[in-house]
Amino acid sequence: MVGGALVKSIKIKSGGGDYNIKFFESLKGVSNTINHENNFFIIDKYVYDNFKLVNKKYEKNIVSVLKPNEKIKTLETVEKVTSKLVRKGANRHSNIVGIGGGFVQDISQFTSHIYHRGTNLTLIPTTLLSMADSCMGGKCGINVSNFKNQVGIFKSPKDIYIYKGFTKTLSKQLLIDGYGEILKLLITKNKSQTINFLEYLNTNEFDIDAVNKFIRLSLLSKKPVVEIDEYELDYRRILNYGHTFAHAIESLSKNKLGHGHAVGFGLNLANFISYRMGYLDKKIFYKIYNSSYQTFDFEKIIKNFKFSEKEFLKTFKTDKKTEGNYTNFILCAGYGELFIKKIKLDDKLASFINEFYELNV
Amino acid sequence: MVGGALVKSIKIKSGGGDYNIKFFESLKGVSNTINHENNFFIIDKYVYDNFKLVNKKYEKNIVSVLKPNEKIKTLETVEKVTSKLVRKGANRHSNIVGIGGGFVQDISQFTSHIYHRGTNLTLIPTTLLSMADSCMGGKCGINVSNFKNQVGIFKSPKDIYIYKGFTKTLSKQLLIDGYGEILKLLITKNKSQTINFLEYLNTNEFDIDAVNKFIRLSLLSKKPVVEIDEYELDYRRILNYGHTFAHAIESLSKNKLGHGHAVGFGLNLANFISYRMGYLDKKIFYKIYNSSYQTFDFEKIIKNFKFSEKEFLKTFKTDKKTEGNYTNFILCAGYGELFIKKIKLDDKLASFINEFYELNV
Repeated sequence: MVGGALVKSIKIKSGGGDYNIKFFESLKGVSNTINHENNFFIIDKYVYDNFKLVNKKYEKNIVSVLKPNEKIKTLETVEKVTSKLVRKGANRHSNIVGIGGGFVQDISQFTSHIYHRGTNLTLIPTTLLSMADSCMGGKCGINVSNFKNQVGIFKSPKDIYIYKGFTKTLSKQLLIDGYGEILKLLITKNKSQTINFLEYLNTNEFDIDAVNKFIRLSLLSKKPVVEIDEYELDYRRILNYGHTFAHAIESLSKNKLGHGHAVGFGLNLANFISYRMGYLDKKIFYKIYNSSYQTFDFEKIIKNFKFSEKEFLKTFKTDKKTEGNYTNFILCAGYGELFIKKIKLDDKLASFINEFYELNV
Repeated sequence: MVGGALVKSIKIKSGGGDYNIKFFESLKGVSNTINHENNFFIIDKYVYDNFKLVNKKYEKNIVSVLKPNEKIKTLETVEKVTSKLVRKGANRHSNIVGIGGGFVQDISQFTSHIYHRGTNLTLIPTTLLSMADSCMGGKCGINVSNFKNQVGIFKSPKDIYIYKGFTKTLSKQLLIDGYGEILKLLITKNKSQTINFLEYLNTNEFDIDAVNKFIRLSLLSKKPVVEIDEYELDYRRILNYGHTFAHAIESLSKNKLGHGHAVGFGLNLANFISYRMGYLDKKIFYKIYNSSYQTFDFEKIIKNFKFSEKEFLKTFKTDKKTEGNYTNFILCAGYGELFIKKIKLDDKLASFINEFYELNV
């Protein structure tokens, strides 16, 4: 196996206080740890219905059971949740426990940051994406009148608990959402782990122990990045690798394309542009491309979401990373070698995008 | 005059970045400084109607004109304001300029803290309380379903601009709101400034230059406290001096009593209890009491807001500073000698409160 013996916990240095990611072997282990008078729970509805985490005795401490989707990621939800916290008597010494995927995490982090000017926070991620990526780093975003992630804060949790068993019941889409981010994080780290992960993807079979291993490796890849630049003033921006293109195709698809598919597509497009601009070895581009083509369904993406270069370039105009006629993209110069490059939104860029589409036909 | 030559600016050390409080001699000086493409304005309606601060050219950068009252201090208002910021194209490099009293300040601070995960912030306080006290220290609170200040954050402004001319048109109530906090802050500092201020109060006449001087002295009293304990982990709590009693009488009066009157009453009650418990010299209690009796209308308070000791003690039960049957009060052992004391909510405390009421009959 890759990376030696499995780590039992990962410590993250943070300006808001260092924190630990702990790995649990059983659901009971997690449950025993969180059933306390001082804990107030915000839980994903699917997890609430299907996993027994909170004992009867502490049912009264369940603040909200949320159906995860973009529509709940609002200040209105935060208002509802905080209002319930007041009525349940939570105070600044209370601990908010967010159990769920990205949406529940965002609401939990934001609420915990502002409630009584800051409470403790425990995150228990239950989707692959949240386990392998978003639980770490404290970043959260809330939508404002249908504009995504326009407000947000950084909030370090006190603890993160990871239990691999949650991955067993995830839909294919939720697995691929995680695979996209794991691939992104491993490419930012090194060659051997990336190749190993691509080989796993090509088995086309779910293997809980392999997934568990890649969750750890993925988190270990992210750790140095968020420790060096927690508040994303500069270096952390490399984690947007593939994402500007992913957001473009998601928006063009009117959000019909899954996030994981979009990220897989986006990072390969970033690699293609890196290769065509002379930064990336053609072999590396093809290695990653050929090994991820199937997982992220490029054939289907190209067939269903073909857009003109003009439409494509237009989406960058409203991107936060765009200044005038230039956008800051994250390009790849090899495994572990990501960099930020300001690129003109011109015919040349359009022709590269077009070439990439043609490649997939 | 007290304190030597007037200071031109006060520098505050802060974890969120040091900032300056600058004093302007003219409205034009303030206006010239803030009319910029990059500035987005949140303005108190009265100030908007009566003072010309934003040029025609930058009218488009006015995000919200707010009528200040408890009802606007909600996440709903924050949602509306951020939504307008998105539509006006503000980004993380923008500067939010909050022009108004405490309510406008709270909304501006909170919005600036969360918009695009944090923008720059300029505060231009326009009420005496906000000029002499709340503009400094970064603390803000937002109400949740009629519960006051249940959510909040700390946000350091980049600049605070103070222009004494705003005090000229303030109502008597708004002046007294400021006087209450100035008295509180000066007592935390020293004897001579407190005595000077009490003498000013007893002239019973508004003097803009005296007020301007006391604004500076008040801010200079607060500066070391927020620098030592910005996030109110311990020492900064002394600034709650008089406020637990003030909140009690405000709540018992169903918010019919002005905040300044409540604070004046509250800090004298805190002093009385300090004296009766043997911490404060009787002479000091009477010196402050006799010199502030009239300004804060104790006679009227006692007449209109007389409550049983039981009712009084009951209000502390829901106070954030209460643990079980004890509340942490701020007591006074002399000028510049405030301290935190855990006091049992028992008959003895009730009898002191009763004695204080009797004193005023």
